[in-house]
Amino acid sequence: MIGYPTKKKVNQVIKTAESAKRGMSLEEDINQSNQVFLDRHLANIHKKPTPITIVKVDYPSRNKAKITEAYFKIPSTTDYNGVYKGRAIDFEAKETANKTSFSLSNIHPHQIKHMENVKEHGGLCFLILRFTSFNETYYLNIDKLSDFTNNQVRKSLPYAWIKLNGHLIPYNFLIPVNYLVILDKYL
Amino acid sequence: MIGYPTKKKVNQVIKTAESAKRGMSLEEDINQSNQVFLDRHLANIHKKPTPITIVKVDYPSRNKAKITEAYFKIPSTTDYNGVYKGRAIDFEAKETANKTSFSLSNIHPHQIKHMENVKEHGGLCFLILRFTSFNETYYLNIDKLSDFTNNQVRKSLPYAWIKLNGHLIPYNFLIPVNYLVILDKYL
Repeated sequence: MIGYPTKKKVNQVIKTAESAKRGMSLEEDINQSNQVFLDRHLANIHKKPTPITIVKVDYPSRNKAKITEAYFKIPSTTDYNGVYKGRAIDFEAKETANKTSFSLSNIHPHQIKHMENVKEHGGLCFLILRFTSFNETYYLNIDKLSDFTNNQVRKSLPYAWIKLNGHLIPYNFLIPVNYLVILDKYL
Repeated sequence: MIGYPTKKKVNQVIKTAESAKRGMSLEEDINQSNQVFLDRHLANIHKKPTPITIVKVDYPSRNKAKITEAYFKIPSTTDYNGVYKGRAIDFEAKETANKTSFSLSNIHPHQIKHMENVKEHGGLCFLILRFTSFNETYYLNIDKLSDFTNNQVRKSLPYAWIKLNGHLIPYNFLIPVNYLVILDKYL
C-alpha cells in the first residue's frame, strides 16, 4: 500500500474485500438514495451545504466571485433534512472503522440538542451510523440516543447496544441506504 | 454620501428615513425571528449555509483548515427550512428596492421546482418578499406563485398582485418577520 501524504489517511484502516466492493462513502450512498427518493416522488430530503465563514472574496471578472479565504464552522444543526409524508425529517450520518463501538465525539452536542428540539416540534430525528468494517448501516432513533446519553457515563455507543436498539438499514445497489423503510415504522 | 468602491453599492438605493430606522437586512430579521421562535419553543427553522464548491484547502497548522479557493454554487434548494407543529417548512426570502414589482429573476427555477416538490410531499412552502422602499414584507404561498408562473408570460410579480395574493407579515421589534402567524392560516 502506497502512503500518500494527505491528512485523510491518518486514521484510515485497510478496507476489507467486502467493503471495497461497495466502495462508496456513506455520504455518497445517502445522496444517491435521496436522489432516488426524489425521482420516485417518495421523499424530498437533501444534504445541507457545509457551513463555512467567508472572510475574503475576489472578483477576477465581472460575473465571477472567487472565495479566497474561508473557514469551516462547527455545525449547529444536522447534515440532512427534508420532508417525508408531510413530516419534517432531520438526521445526522457518520461512519466509523471501529469494530466495537461508535464514539460520540463524532457528534457535536449542539447537533444532539438540535435533534431533540426538532423531535419536540414533531419532526422525525435519527442517526445513520455505518460500521465500515462490517458494511452495516444502522438507523438509531433520537429517543434511544437521548436515553443513552442521559443514563450512561461512557462516551461511545457499543456496537452490541446499537444492534439491539437500532435498526439495520437494508442495502441494495440502487438505494444503498433505504432508511425510508425504517422510518415507516415510526410514522 | 461617500461612495465606497465595493461591488455591493452598485444597485443600492438611498434608504428612506423609515427604512433606515429599522436598518436590518431581511436575512438578519428572519434569523432574529427564527432565534426567538427557537427560544420560545414555537418552531425550529434555520437558514441553510450558502452552497459552495471547495477547490483548495490549506493546513497552516495541525488543527486549522483554511479554504483558499472556493466558488459559489447555484442553489438547488431554498435558503430556509425546518419544522413547525410537526410540519416541514421550506421557504425562500428575497428583498427588492423596486416599487412596482418583484422580478422573478431573483429566484432560480430550481428553487421554485423544489418548493413545488416539497409541497407535494406535504410541506408548507412559501416566499417571503420584502419591498424595502415601503418596509413591507409579504408571505406568498407557493400555490399562488405556481398559478402566476403557469398562467402569466411576464417575468415579475406586480406589487399590486402581491398585495392581493400574499399576506402582509406583521413586524415588531422582537420578531421582525413573524411569518408563523400567517402559517397558522395554512395549517
